[in-house]
Amino acid sequence: MPFDVDTPALLLDRSRLQSNLSRMRSRAQRLGVRLRPHMKTAKSIDVARLLLEPGEGITVSTLAEAEYFARHGVSDILYAVGFEPGKARRASQLVAGGADLAVIVDSVEMAAWLAESQLALGVWLEIDTDGTRCGISPDDGRLVEAAARLGPALRGVMTHAGGAYACHGPDEITDAAARERAAVVAATRRLGDHGIPVAGLSIGSTPTATFAADLAGVTEMRPGVFMFQDLYQAGLGVCSIDAIAISVLTAVIGHRTGELVVDAGALALSLDRSTARQPVDWGFGALCSEAGEPIDGLYVRAVTQEHGIVAHRDGGLDVGAHPIGSRLRILPNHACITAAAHARYHVIDHDDVAEVWPRLTGW
Amino acid sequence: MPFDVDTPALLLDRSRLQSNLSRMRSRAQRLGVRLRPHMKTAKSIDVARLLLEPGEGITVSTLAEAEYFARHGVSDILYAVGFEPGKARRASQLVAGGADLAVIVDSVEMAAWLAESQLALGVWLEIDTDGTRCGISPDDGRLVEAAARLGPALRGVMTHAGGAYACHGPDEITDAAARERAAVVAATRRLGDHGIPVAGLSIGSTPTATFAADLAGVTEMRPGVFMFQDLYQAGLGVCSIDAIAISVLTAVIGHRTGELVVDAGALALSLDRSTARQPVDWGFGALCSEAGEPIDGLYVRAVTQEHGIVAHRDGGLDVGAHPIGSRLRILPNHACITAAAHARYHVIDHDDVAEVWPRLTGW
Repeated sequence: MPFDVDTPALLLDRSRLQSNLSRMRSRAQRLGVRLRPHMKTAKSIDVARLLLEPGEGITVSTLAEAEYFARHGVSDILYAVGFEPGKARRASQLVAGGADLAVIVDSVEMAAWLAESQLALGVWLEIDTDGTRCGISPDDGRLVEAAARLGPALRGVMTHAGGAYACHGPDEITDAAARERAAVVAATRRLGDHGIPVAGLSIGSTPTATFAADLAGVTEMRPGVFMFQDLYQAGLGVCSIDAIAISVLTAVIGHRTGELVVDAGALALSLDRSTARQPVDWGFGALCSEAGEPIDGLYVRAVTQEHGIVAHRDGGLDVGAHPIGSRLRILPNHACITAAAHARYHVIDHDDVAEVWPRLTGW
Repeated sequence: MPFDVDTPALLLDRSRLQSNLSRMRSRAQRLGVRLRPHMKTAKSIDVARLLLEPGEGITVSTLAEAEYFARHGVSDILYAVGFEPGKARRASQLVAGGADLAVIVDSVEMAAWLAESQLALGVWLEIDTDGTRCGISPDDGRLVEAAARLGPALRGVMTHAGGAYACHGPDEITDAAARERAAVVAATRRLGDHGIPVAGLSIGSTPTATFAADLAGVTEMRPGVFMFQDLYQAGLGVCSIDAIAISVLTAVIGHRTGELVVDAGALALSLDRSTARQPVDWGFGALCSEAGEPIDGLYVRAVTQEHGIVAHRDGGLDVGAHPIGSRLRILPNHACITAAAHARYHVIDHDDVAEVWPRLTGW
């Protein structure tokens, strides 16, 4: 301290990261399910190495992530965004290179397409838990038809309770987790009734993984944001603010009346405003000192491409305490989206930048 | 057509780009001012080469852009985000490498710091036109004090009417442009009254550059987004929708009741929602066919990290017309922010991807 890093820059607190990883590892053990962490948040082999046990699988959100992690020796990969024929070329290259790549579909159309393809991909059927995004409902006749088309390629049924992000407090999240479990268990039972065995039952989100009371029958879960946590997760009650492992280091570049201008704007922070619908709205991020101590009431009120405007919730910001060139840190609303703007982590260990870890960007 | 490009991908229509560049070049000539285009939108030397005349200068929003363009032979560079001491090392390396780098400040504190530094940077004073972001008001006593501290390093006075983005229609933008002009002219007069000559009077934004009626006294303007245009500019009346030169190519990956799921989400489109405050709210983007024809009423209703949900404004979307694997294009709300997520342009010329142009990301 001060960090020898140009601003804006993405910092990653190694000890917070490690606590977050251990906590989720314990959760999975206690719940009796495998962990198939979603690497869309970190997109970093260094983070994966801290987390994964030998032979353990991962979840990814892009084929670029699948290629990156396969190149670094992770072979069991679930690409958890609906597959379409335009992805066949890269998927087949991954398989040819030795990856055990599985994909997801939620239509008879794509199940049939995959069954007829020569792609040698594992396939999971996506089940809809709460109508928020994709998936076949467990009681929809297309479920059995799609599974029948897949034949031996069927690896299991998976779901993601997008609705968990709209919950208010732990009890509602526990209920959302129960609905995730119920959806994949019901789908499995339905397929069993038609003589189709289902080996894998996969659920996943950081909130539901954190507050699930019982995952009997579920084989694996796929949380991602837990690695870093963020203000949105803190607002949900999933973590405390001091569990948030990433922050954007920024420099003060100007003063306005009662406000600071900093060099982290829409690109360095992202335009994520997810805390706007929570009791505490953090604007575009919450301010900490350069050492990482939260500064009560300070938040990013507005952003343009490379400017952030820092204000105090009650108007009481002493700009003189933050001279031009002084530095602050900003905790993100949504770790996955903020991290995506950055090509590297500056890893902090005992108040020093100990290492730089590259991270993947793009598709 | 169809394009041999993996989705999601950023497309750039070369003929629209060239029309946009020519139109702004004519504007500058008609108004009698130099063009110092803001390269924060394109971050591409290939775009700069189409636009710049020999020896012409540019504006940038990060030192990474300054380094990138300097490396590609552009030497006259204005870094138009408030300078702070932490940027000194890289700025001095740029100057040592032959760049004519100028920076901006809006405080006596930084003017004094720069005057005492050995950085050999040109300095512009940032003038506040409308209270939206940074700058010293022309009638603020600190203006003269800052200029006096700078001495011969002073290159000029510059402003940016952030308020132009909140205008309703051309007449209000013409007024905003008049205020930009008035601010730098007033600052220049004020400094002249104190015996401080001002060579450069710089204003800039795409809306004000498009609708300025008279820029007498102004020496240069710094628009950026005009190169690509976007839905927000179209909503302001700055351009027509068919002037928008970039779009995100996406594949349909699923169907919901009356909605499509596509593989362009928060990362590929950005979370920019700027059209939410305009008469026509485009959600996270407007849909076109793969060939680039707008599809009436279709927009991106919601996004998560890698998913977009496409809906029809009046509910009438025939999902069967868009099978899984078919492709669409999405026009962005805000070109600068959407482009920033991508590392390359797939340049379309006569309905074919003719070239791939890299673009700079990060800081």
